[in-house]
Amino acid sequence: MRYGFGVDLGGTTVKIASFAESGALRHKWEIPTATDNNGQGILPDIASAVLGYLEKEKLAKSEILGIGIGVPGAVDETGFVRSCDNLGWRNVDVVGTLSALTGLPVKTGNDANMAALGECWKGSGCNNMLLVTLGTGVGGGIIINGKPLVGKNGAAGEIGHLVMNRKETMVCGCGKKGCAEQYCSATGLVRMAKDYATAKDVFDAAKAGDEKAKAVLEQYYAYLAELIANVCIVLNPEKVVIGGGVSKAGQPLLSGIARHFEKFIYHSSRDVEFALAALGNDAGAYGAFKLLLD
Amino acid sequence: MRYGFGVDLGGTTVKIASFAESGALRHKWEIPTATDNNGQGILPDIASAVLGYLEKEKLAKSEILGIGIGVPGAVDETGFVRSCDNLGWRNVDVVGTLSALTGLPVKTGNDANMAALGECWKGSGCNNMLLVTLGTGVGGGIIINGKPLVGKNGAAGEIGHLVMNRKETMVCGCGKKGCAEQYCSATGLVRMAKDYATAKDVFDAAKAGDEKAKAVLEQYYAYLAELIANVCIVLNPEKVVIGGGVSKAGQPLLSGIARHFEKFIYHSSRDVEFALAALGNDAGAYGAFKLLLD
Repeated sequence: MRYGFGVDLGGTTVKIASFAESGALRHKWEIPTATDNNGQGILPDIASAVLGYLEKEKLAKSEILGIGIGVPGAVDETGFVRSCDNLGWRNVDVVGTLSALTGLPVKTGNDANMAALGECWKGSGCNNMLLVTLGTGVGGGIIINGKPLVGKNGAAGEIGHLVMNRKETMVCGCGKKGCAEQYCSATGLVRMAKDYATAKDVFDAAKAGDEKAKAVLEQYYAYLAELIANVCIVLNPEKVVIGGGVSKAGQPLLSGIARHFEKFIYHSSRDVEFALAALGNDAGAYGAFKLLLD
Repeated sequence: MRYGFGVDLGGTTVKIASFAESGALRHKWEIPTATDNNGQGILPDIASAVLGYLEKEKLAKSEILGIGIGVPGAVDETGFVRSCDNLGWRNVDVVGTLSALTGLPVKTGNDANMAALGECWKGSGCNNMLLVTLGTGVGGGIIINGKPLVGKNGAAGEIGHLVMNRKETMVCGCGKKGCAEQYCSATGLVRMAKDYATAKDVFDAAKAGDEKAKAVLEQYYAYLAELIANVCIVLNPEKVVIGGGVSKAGQPLLSGIARHFEKFIYHSSRDVEFALAALGNDAGAYGAFKLLLD
């Protein structure tokens, strides 16, 4: 039996999980993400955590498949990150650096793609799917024939930045105006709702019968349906899996999207299935580990 | 040396081309598309044309790689067409029927995907590209790692039906409202321009300095740039190739799109290259033949 690591590198914490080759999760833990000093300590911290675990568990490097790591930004096919604002990174060779620090094989990919791969492998997904993550922002991971779609610069699936309103005056975090993220994220929902502090407040008020909250949610569902339909028209996937904090709203969210989806989707792609993400915060670690098996 | 056929099946004519295994085009000709009687004569006509050619050229079936054929509609991975309005087809097994009629191996795909594969192989394309065809409608073909993206029902790349205006009242040919095709096709351009009979008239008037035509074209370029940017944000391709009748406008079309592209594209996908299609009407036959080599 061999083992490996799946790492989900986020802007605040690094989630590390150890897996048996079979895919069974053995242990998981978190360390803080050292974003100071342009994030120079991040990969050494991960290397220490992994090497410390090997020592504690009395595992030899020869028993280890390697480290799979998901990065919150665009990663090209060679494992190179040009720029990642959340981490302070510029021109970081993730694969070269982390394998030099650990003496282990390393594979890497974008965090949304890793989460999609995790859902494809062990969650609600299938081999041709779109993962949509609805949280502070809107992310997307695309799986085609069981593999993440990476794109030229590792930027495929950045569906939060599709243009949804060419007349928007407010600027998106990316510098453009009218991005899907401005309407489809938890942040976008709260902005549209005005009187509520969090997305959960809006869902709770609607559940309690508040007409204004219900109307805002209906508008939110319509935006989501339009965005997802447009991506499905490009890809014609088998399944759309919804994850991220907003997905905790559960079945009412899927029903809400379904009420509007039909009017936006092209007929040949109408039979796409919808599901809620199953792995929660562990999806990224599962997917990153899965990279090592492919 | 072996040979094969690339067939581009259209609603009016069937383009047939014979190729050497090396990819050199030997002969090409057209036959009318027999759309009467629910298109039942179409595949027999193609079989007769191919078998007649073999006889005339004194080629044995053992020298033939097979027939690749592009179909104007959604074709699934098994070569089955559920429905194709242009041909009158319902539930046609293209691969099974045409190989039974000819005794030759048959492969098939969607016509836009075949044109994209042709441009990828012998034209302006590359291994990770989007072909956008601008004609009566708007079509798209997506190539990832040198292979067409097919999708669950063969409907991937139907980019003419992305939602661009959720408030549109006019109905698209597909039954939805506000599809990209309503603004980005030659038909859409003429509709926006009102005083001109064809897309070429609008381009000619703008070239001659007509301010109204220039303003309409600028609006048209903005729609095209927004559509193409949205698809590029999903796929992050290396190259976008523009084909179809409107592409005869040439470099001014590419410059026009470029003037608006920057404000719609996500920064990580900004470095996509644009090119005009190189193979014209032969792209579909080249791509269909290429299927046989893969």
